[in-house]
Amino acid sequence: MTKRQPLRTHWTLFALGLSLLAAACGGGGQGELVALAAERDMSPEDAARAIKSFVPPGKLDDYILFASGGHSGQVFAVGLPSMRLLKSIAVFTPESWQGYGYGADWSENAIAGGSIGNETLKWGDTHHPALSETDGDYDGRWLYINDRANGRIAMIDLTDFRTKQVVQIPNLMTSHGGVFATPDTRYVHVSSKVPAPKGWNPKVGTSVKIEDHLEHYPDLYRGYSTWLRIDQQNGRILLDESFQIELPPYTQDLADAGKGPSYGWGFMNSYNSEMATGGVNYGRPPLEAGASEKDFDFLHMVNWKKAEEAVAAGKAEVVNGIKVVSLDTAIAEGILFLAPEPRSPHGVDVAPNGSYITVAGKLDPRVTVYSIEKIEEAIAKQDFEGKDRYGIPILKFDSVVAGQVEVGAGPLHTQYDHEGYGYTSLFLESAVAKWSLGPPYHEGDKAFKLVDKIPVHYNIGHLATAHGDTMKPHGNYLVALNKWSIDRFTNVGPLHPQNLQLIDLTGEKMALLRDAPIGVGEPHYAQIISTKVLKPLRVYELGTDPGIMAKSDSAIAGGAESRIERRDGVVEVWMSVIRSQFNPDVIAAKKGDKVIIHLSNVEQTPDATHGFAVPTKNVNVSLDAGETTTVEFVVDTPGSYSFYCTEFCSALHLEMQGWIVVEG
Amino acid sequence: MTKRQPLRTHWTLFALGLSLLAAACGGGGQGELVALAAERDMSPEDAARAIKSFVPPGKLDDYILFASGGHSGQVFAVGLPSMRLLKSIAVFTPESWQGYGYGADWSENAIAGGSIGNETLKWGDTHHPALSETDGDYDGRWLYINDRANGRIAMIDLTDFRTKQVVQIPNLMTSHGGVFATPDTRYVHVSSKVPAPKGWNPKVGTSVKIEDHLEHYPDLYRGYSTWLRIDQQNGRILLDESFQIELPPYTQDLADAGKGPSYGWGFMNSYNSEMATGGVNYGRPPLEAGASEKDFDFLHMVNWKKAEEAVAAGKAEVVNGIKVVSLDTAIAEGILFLAPEPRSPHGVDVAPNGSYITVAGKLDPRVTVYSIEKIEEAIAKQDFEGKDRYGIPILKFDSVVAGQVEVGAGPLHTQYDHEGYGYTSLFLESAVAKWSLGPPYHEGDKAFKLVDKIPVHYNIGHLATAHGDTMKPHGNYLVALNKWSIDRFTNVGPLHPQNLQLIDLTGEKMALLRDAPIGVGEPHYAQIISTKVLKPLRVYELGTDPGIMAKSDSAIAGGAESRIERRDGVVEVWMSVIRSQFNPDVIAAKKGDKVIIHLSNVEQTPDATHGFAVPTKNVNVSLDAGETTTVEFVVDTPGSYSFYCTEFCSALHLEMQGWIVVEG
Repeated sequence: MTKRQPLRTHWTLFALGLSLLAAACGGGGQGELVALAAERDMSPEDAARAIKSFVPPGKLDDYILFASGGHSGQVFAVGLPSMRLLKSIAVFTPESWQGYGYGADWSENAIAGGSIGNETLKWGDTHHPALSETDGDYDGRWLYINDRANGRIAMIDLTDFRTKQVVQIPNLMTSHGGVFATPDTRYVHVSSKVPAPKGWNPKVGTSVKIEDHLEHYPDLYRGYSTWLRIDQQNGRILLDESFQIELPPYTQDLADAGKGPSYGWGFMNSYNSEMATGGVNYGRPPLEAGASEKDFDFLHMVNWKKAEEAVAAGKAEVVNGIKVVSLDTAIAEGILFLAPEPRSPHGVDVAPNGSYITVAGKLDPRVTVYSIEKIEEAIAKQDFEGKDRYGIPILKFDSVVAGQVEVGAGPLHTQYDHEGYGYTSLFLESAVAKWSLGPPYHEGDKAFKLVDKIPVHYNIGHLATAHGDTMKPHGNYLVALNKWSIDRFTNVGPLHPQNLQLIDLTGEKMALLRDAPIGVGEPHYAQIISTKVLKPLRVYELGTDPGIMAKSDSAIAGGAESRIERRDGVVEVWMSVIRSQFNPDVIAAKKGDKVIIHLSNVEQTPDATHGFAVPTKNVNVSLDAGETTTVEFVVDTPGSYSFYCTEFCSALHLEMQGWIVVEG
Repeated sequence: MTKRQPLRTHWTLFALGLSLLAAACGGGGQGELVALAAERDMSPEDAARAIKSFVPPGKLDDYILFASGGHSGQVFAVGLPSMRLLKSIAVFTPESWQGYGYGADWSENAIAGGSIGNETLKWGDTHHPALSETDGDYDGRWLYINDRANGRIAMIDLTDFRTKQVVQIPNLMTSHGGVFATPDTRYVHVSSKVPAPKGWNPKVGTSVKIEDHLEHYPDLYRGYSTWLRIDQQNGRILLDESFQIELPPYTQDLADAGKGPSYGWGFMNSYNSEMATGGVNYGRPPLEAGASEKDFDFLHMVNWKKAEEAVAAGKAEVVNGIKVVSLDTAIAEGILFLAPEPRSPHGVDVAPNGSYITVAGKLDPRVTVYSIEKIEEAIAKQDFEGKDRYGIPILKFDSVVAGQVEVGAGPLHTQYDHEGYGYTSLFLESAVAKWSLGPPYHEGDKAFKLVDKIPVHYNIGHLATAHGDTMKPHGNYLVALNKWSIDRFTNVGPLHPQNLQLIDLTGEKMALLRDAPIGVGEPHYAQIISTKVLKPLRVYELGTDPGIMAKSDSAIAGGAESRIERRDGVVEVWMSVIRSQFNPDVIAAKKGDKVIIHLSNVEQTPDATHGFAVPTKNVNVSLDAGETTTVEFVVDTPGSYSFYCTEFCSALHLEMQGWIVVEG
């Protein structure tokens, strides 16, 4: 490597850069950059990729991509264009760096909210993040995410990037269709993945005989489309004001909310309308074959406005604590319709203007684009080809489809830009296809045409464009969420990182900028939001309990003092936390005592986070500046336990410790 | 942004690049790169940083930095120079993406090995990773890491990047000094952090009265230096062949192993030789004051070769299951010596040639460099200034110090390059200082001089250079592990990511290349290893149990068949796992049955990982190609549970599911 000059301040350098820019050929920065690239065996094109996606030291990313973490159970916040992991937000899975699920009461409460049956679940399979929206665009308030392994949803407050609520959605054993928010975040939607026994409740269960599973599947099982009402003050899910619509036991897959002309509708696709049961060991075909026999499955159209009216009119019954519109009522009230869709579809994505709904069937090389105007016209005319076995009207394919585009092998999901182009992931082909929507975006023979394709590496699932599923997409960046990386990264053992690839959409052709390994989970879907929309806190106001985002009664702030109170079997401590001491710092206790500690980080300096950890205990709290949290545990073994601050907070951080001295 | 040309294949582009390189001024790639940078408001210097640290799509990183994850409990593998997180390796904290601690037997066994007292610990505070060494250089076999919150150590097998062993080290309540490997990995070393009550055992405890804590601390508590013997075949820690040396209840801090001329020695520093107890609520000074009163603390020198001889001669006693050399024996056998070191030191780092030992005291602006030749000479001459209260001989400061260098405010840790320079982190100054060692590296007035300094952002703790604590440092890259990031990244709430900064050491002056946010833990220390040394598997041989790295008796491979066997209250299943089906895929059970499933991923394709997850259960397994794992759980609630593959493995991944049908 060549000898390089030292770095001085940024602005000096910038001035220097400008002068170099103006300099004559052969001198200064220009040739040097190409030479630097050549030195590292990089082509000029690679150098251009580096420059187009680099965020220099001291500068900030323009976007945050919120990606689900798959079976890590978390959500990842990744900066764009640098593709750096800014934060993994703990959601369903306890995570000790954030002190989530290690004693802090706000986190324990969140996790307990998602308990199922008789066990507290300690993991999840996060699938589809949904940013809250106002006027059809992301508003930066909240983020919702479902657990595909169970029928659960969580709410992350984007004020502090912490999970505040986990809810077990009644009647859902698993979830997939959603989360998607309505354009005003009145509701967020989650539907079941695999259907569950009718009326199934995780606490008491439902006895199922193996013969019934194999022989009476269509009668035994049901799915549900769930519309969860959102409290506009704090983003909380209000189960009492939410409702479900009973669905046939097809396997409902993805879902999206209508907007603009389709506002009031929700769309879900499905596979296994064959209702295959699996059971190779019972002589049945494997599900992959049994669920792929028919040429068409069903796009589900749900009119949630009409459902809301039916619920208001008392036409729903409460099942396991939530109002449910039965299949019969849904049919009678014009709430639920089906339309054929090419077999085993995966993605359903509403276009920015709300007129088009794109479905991609993984066993069909085309995207199929439905029109809400055609759908509403067909419903008005009762232009049905028949009904399914449950009596749900089936619209005629030709009556509701606006166009189809052959995009390539294994199309899955579609996102959009601001100019009326769709970008569809091609799993089998490992590529992204760009194609044109119809009027008003593109007319005549410009409509519904494949216009570009770019290879990705490898096996792309979802993809995301900036504000790409809002009414106002930005059209600059696309991220391909690839499932396999194989040879793209340094070998770190048989479990490979995922590969998120950043693609530049601003040119005539899509252009790959960089590969980003995600070695901490398996992102399924992501949304990309401008950082201008986000307004997170830098510190909490003194004494804030993150669980309620208000001053805690237990805070040491504005008068209350550090102290220890004792009563039978209980030692209760109000402890201040500041660089570099806990106060009180020595706690005497007897064997068997319950120790309750109200911890108040009394700092107001950004980044002045402290920790509180106790040896031999599953107690580890992360306290941000201004935060108050309560933790409790039993000291069941005598000894002297040196609790300490887990965040390297100051030069005297190592001395920031105290003792719990247990006699007994 | 300008319209850009499409990307074609890499080699075409490279040829194009070369032709552009040769092109005349004003055309082609050169000016274009500067223009691209200007378009993004980047200086040419920033563009150079981008190019110097970018790893283009399809190319690989040159180094892996293994960083501890702090109180996340994990270890992070980060590629250099791209600074991309390639993998978070689950160690002390269960992690569901890797299926670590969610049912897979190898992972449950590892975690259980670190259980303490009556509770299984579900987190850790990883501090100091130690790569195994051969001939004083990293050999890429194993990685060891301690849990600072408890006296624990874990072993990660770099064949598959999985944690295989967690060990609770007897007599240690917390740990800090280590892990460091001897140059031949005969031993890895861990010493206590805060001392524990003498003879403390986590299961039965030791009753401590508060008065004794406050008044009799010097008699009540002890620390231990632990030398853990390593099985050279599989990297396992052999507790039976390990030993400890009893230490005074100073707070022992960091440690390092001797090498070359200092082979056979271990070095530890300490603070709180005042033995302050804390107790502001008892009228005592806070620890940060009480532990900083004296001008000198003690560097500990441990002769582990002599200790090994003493143990072999039966001079150790077994305490809580490990052989312990008592303080008296250590003194009598010439195993333990002290030397004054400037107050409250933090880092102790042996130079590549093994002659120098650098200590940095955070309350002293100098690094102090000891000489092993001087130490051995002083010991031979019994040139002591006296003894501490426990009778340990104290060497004279002036007799053992080779030099001191004033480097700046708050020096902590030192790493080295191949030319005899030390790089010391300056916490208070937020900078890295480069300074010269003495002979044979630098003679006369070139020795022990500060030669360069670079600011970092902010509050640097540890730092790492490539192979920087081996006998063969590479001298090209340095990574600053900064504790605060404040304004360096897009705001993601009050808990900020850590900031790892990549610094280029190849020029006359150190040069900052990039900031890397670590938003998933709080790295403390890291080691950087060339990827050429690592030889991880891409797939397991068919039927491999990762716990033993040999064929599992339960594998479906080479003849054994998928099957279900039933006996009273037990359903035992041998299940094959392959794209896109489980076999068997429907399992009938009765309420209350224990279900045991031996899962065999029968693929041999790299990246063909499958998952196995069960709704409502804390069961989630990640099975790499070739792997066999066993999971068991009780079906306590009737119902039909749709288990499924959590890795998006194929186009028909969604159909890769089965049923556990529970009657009852």
